[in-house]
Amino acid sequence: MLALHGLAWKRLGAYLKESQLLGSIQNTLYWDQNTSMPCAGASWRAEQLSLLAKQIHERQSSDQLQDLLNAAKAEFEQLLALEELQPKTIIEKKRNIQLLEQDIKRQKSLDTGLVVSLAKSKSKGYELWQKARSENDFQIFAPALKELISLRHEEVRQLCEPRTAWETLAQPFEPDLTISRLNNLFDPLRKALPQLLDQSRSIKNNPTLSWELDPLSQGVLANQLFEDWSIDRSKTCLSQSPHPFSITLGPCDFRLTNRVVDGQPLSCFLATAHELGHSLYEQGLPCESHQWFAWPVGQATSMAVHESQSLFWENRVARSRAFSKRFWPIFVKAGAPFSSSFDLWRAMNRFKPCLNRVEADELTYGLHILIRTDLEIALIEGGLPVDDLPAEWNSRYKSLLGIQPNNDREGCLQDVHWSEGQFGYFPSYLLGHLISAQLSESMSNHLQEDGFDADDPIESCINKRQESLLLSWLRKEVHPIGRNMNSDELVETVTGSSLSSESFLKYLDRKLKIAFKGF
Amino acid sequence: MLALHGLAWKRLGAYLKESQLLGSIQNTLYWDQNTSMPCAGASWRAEQLSLLAKQIHERQSSDQLQDLLNAAKAEFEQLLALEELQPKTIIEKKRNIQLLEQDIKRQKSLDTGLVVSLAKSKSKGYELWQKARSENDFQIFAPALKELISLRHEEVRQLCEPRTAWETLAQPFEPDLTISRLNNLFDPLRKALPQLLDQSRSIKNNPTLSWELDPLSQGVLANQLFEDWSIDRSKTCLSQSPHPFSITLGPCDFRLTNRVVDGQPLSCFLATAHELGHSLYEQGLPCESHQWFAWPVGQATSMAVHESQSLFWENRVARSRAFSKRFWPIFVKAGAPFSSSFDLWRAMNRFKPCLNRVEADELTYGLHILIRTDLEIALIEGGLPVDDLPAEWNSRYKSLLGIQPNNDREGCLQDVHWSEGQFGYFPSYLLGHLISAQLSESMSNHLQEDGFDADDPIESCINKRQESLLLSWLRKEVHPIGRNMNSDELVETVTGSSLSSESFLKYLDRKLKIAFKGF
Repeated sequence: MLALHGLAWKRLGAYLKESQLLGSIQNTLYWDQNTSMPCAGASWRAEQLSLLAKQIHERQSSDQLQDLLNAAKAEFEQLLALEELQPKTIIEKKRNIQLLEQDIKRQKSLDTGLVVSLAKSKSKGYELWQKARSENDFQIFAPALKELISLRHEEVRQLCEPRTAWETLAQPFEPDLTISRLNNLFDPLRKALPQLLDQSRSIKNNPTLSWELDPLSQGVLANQLFEDWSIDRSKTCLSQSPHPFSITLGPCDFRLTNRVVDGQPLSCFLATAHELGHSLYEQGLPCESHQWFAWPVGQATSMAVHESQSLFWENRVARSRAFSKRFWPIFVKAGAPFSSSFDLWRAMNRFKPCLNRVEADELTYGLHILIRTDLEIALIEGGLPVDDLPAEWNSRYKSLLGIQPNNDREGCLQDVHWSEGQFGYFPSYLLGHLISAQLSESMSNHLQEDGFDADDPIESCINKRQESLLLSWLRKEVHPIGRNMNSDELVETVTGSSLSSESFLKYLDRKLKIAFKGF
Repeated sequence: MLALHGLAWKRLGAYLKESQLLGSIQNTLYWDQNTSMPCAGASWRAEQLSLLAKQIHERQSSDQLQDLLNAAKAEFEQLLALEELQPKTIIEKKRNIQLLEQDIKRQKSLDTGLVVSLAKSKSKGYELWQKARSENDFQIFAPALKELISLRHEEVRQLCEPRTAWETLAQPFEPDLTISRLNNLFDPLRKALPQLLDQSRSIKNNPTLSWELDPLSQGVLANQLFEDWSIDRSKTCLSQSPHPFSITLGPCDFRLTNRVVDGQPLSCFLATAHELGHSLYEQGLPCESHQWFAWPVGQATSMAVHESQSLFWENRVARSRAFSKRFWPIFVKAGAPFSSSFDLWRAMNRFKPCLNRVEADELTYGLHILIRTDLEIALIEGGLPVDDLPAEWNSRYKSLLGIQPNNDREGCLQDVHWSEGQFGYFPSYLLGHLISAQLSESMSNHLQEDGFDADDPIESCINKRQESLLLSWLRKEVHPIGRNMNSDELVETVTGSSLSSESFLKYLDRKLKIAFKGF
């Protein structure tokens, strides 16, 4: 009879909830650190965060959790035998069990000594990376990178998964990703992106306009996105931080930040759109009034899917023609020197190779990622010695983008990821573009059925200020999946086809055409 | 030999530090809740806070802490016998041991059931108090107040201290305070304040000026205080919240808030001065690069001393003549209708009875506190039934201030303290005025010796924009004491005399004279 009441399941849930409470406290400290904390608070904050990290790691690898999970699983199997559960419940519970087993196994496989060494090595890596950047000297960072790679190899040995080393490290970001699948997705891009880049060179670019937008106007424009996209301000708030981010602090507590960058008057607007996309995804995850908030299926399935959501709102919506038409008068009123909405659109959609990933346009962005992906696989899988990284980086930029860094700060020292020992994260950015494009095609088909202009249903929907319909579709088809599926399964389920680069390339081609011919 | 290295002491310190880390995380959540959190985040935040409160209570009442303390004490006694410790170290260590024993005893005496009931009863009390206020009906709140009083009586029984019930409850705010000492301090005020109030009625008040200051200017003025008082922005930050407060999040992380209130253009400026005073005290506590940050002697000794510091900066400095002279042009430029700096000073220093404590001037403020103190002692010590509170409140306002509330919202429902079961807190506000005045006299003597104008050395010091000297004196004489002494001992040590109401009354008298005769 006990089993019928699902008591073991509830006990497991209570345990997970306490872990999630601690995790969300950690997130609150992180938020505060980036939005409010005076700089001298850093070292005590680090101690607070280590204490929580220790508590959370202990909870996630404890025998108590294993016992609770075993009991919940046994109870679930009893209930299954009684055939009294709904099919949806069965699927979700099975998936929760499977993911918890996988997560515990991962946590338990790791030696505490290694966890501590990695944490230390990460902060040392970050510190030396900052120093190397400021002194523009890769050699300052090189020994730390070598140590991080060696510790990551030790981690791979301890995890002992049936995958290559790089694949093992990529799992937390992209579950089930393999190098062969990645090549399958990226190879067409290796060929097509340089060709598109070549085409783009003949676009008559805007003259290099030098213009500014006062910070107050930038704030007004960012807030306008909240209105246009009907963001619920009772649970979503916006602040400023040195680097924009989005974070979830509770089932009804979502935060995001933007920033004002001198000389980049569009940055604040586009970053807000991007972070809102991340936040809207989190807000649509299958919490069902907290039910899954602390459970695996209530969480984001992968970094690529997360990125697909931020990119959708940034590139498909905020960078759309309809949006430029809507915002052109506001920009002009605030002093922007655009004589038409197309001018604004071109400023939002420039195609020009640059050395910096975060400043890259939609077309060249992929090339930045291809370079990083190849290099980190080579670093981890053994082909590339750390000392050869700068030269290799520079030669690939020359060959793929036709430009070359003047120094390592502009080159292989530009991103933070490797300094924190994160390998396997970079592909998610490009996979996000692919997923966004393919999901957008399905969304377009749906909107077309609902009577929106067949030529570009999303554009037509935005034109009618009905972005809420875009969100409804994502809320119905994409967000509620959570970790019920990995990203490949999600795309196949939602779009009916396996993920490929086709939609993305089609989308880029179309955007280039607009750049050529105007509205 | 182990004892020589102070290992047991260090182990105790490590334990206390972990508790302090958790406590400061709690403070961070509180800060975030009041400055950033979207409203829908409240219920999850409450769960985060309960989890931390539970962890902290367990740590503060644990056998492990008791054992660590016993070992540290034994080790300390061994070291004492060897006569190798410095006198200052001996005093501080003894005091730490004494306070820790006292704090643990208090925590351990309380039954967990009672702690939980009290927590629940407090949040119910707060909820019903809000409801009673919004419906302006004391009877909605009365049952909760009765329950809170009954639970507090149970707490007093469990604590079983050699004091009366009200005194026992007042200890966390004012250690060692007794009712007889309180009467000794407050009785002269009961007589003198109404007389001063009578005198003040013949001051020719400013015409009731209706003026506003735009929020931006209010912000600029508040920030000017940071500059004028050389506040270290690398460890102090300012934000906005519905009710101004000051809080410490780490040994180098101090936060404070202000707010803009419609129709009260001086409120933001004065609240900033007040909260800065609290923060400067916390910043001057005997941390000695973290050494005592987690130890009792590193903490504020009482709410009254804390309040004395905020009141000093608010009333002696920001409400000074010199400050009005300095800020008059800025206020006028921002649109304030003052034809002289004295006009501004009068706006800052109005003497007029009102019904609301937080809006009261320095003279009538004391009367508000006398009423609350008498009433809560009567409520706790048995003389006054809860149901008679509103009538009793109103009649005391009539007799002491000559005005009477039209309803309970303007009357006995105005303050939050009792709704959260806090009894014994109110006197600290008035004690703070007394302490501030008496410390200011000593400070004045010191400044006079340093050559400042004998008539009013503090005023003369501010006139020369040398507020840093005021801070230096507090940093030397008052702040480093921490919990090494209680407030009475602190005042006696610093000023050479036992605390009394004399200096405060002298100060008020002097301020009234300025109001009469002008600058």
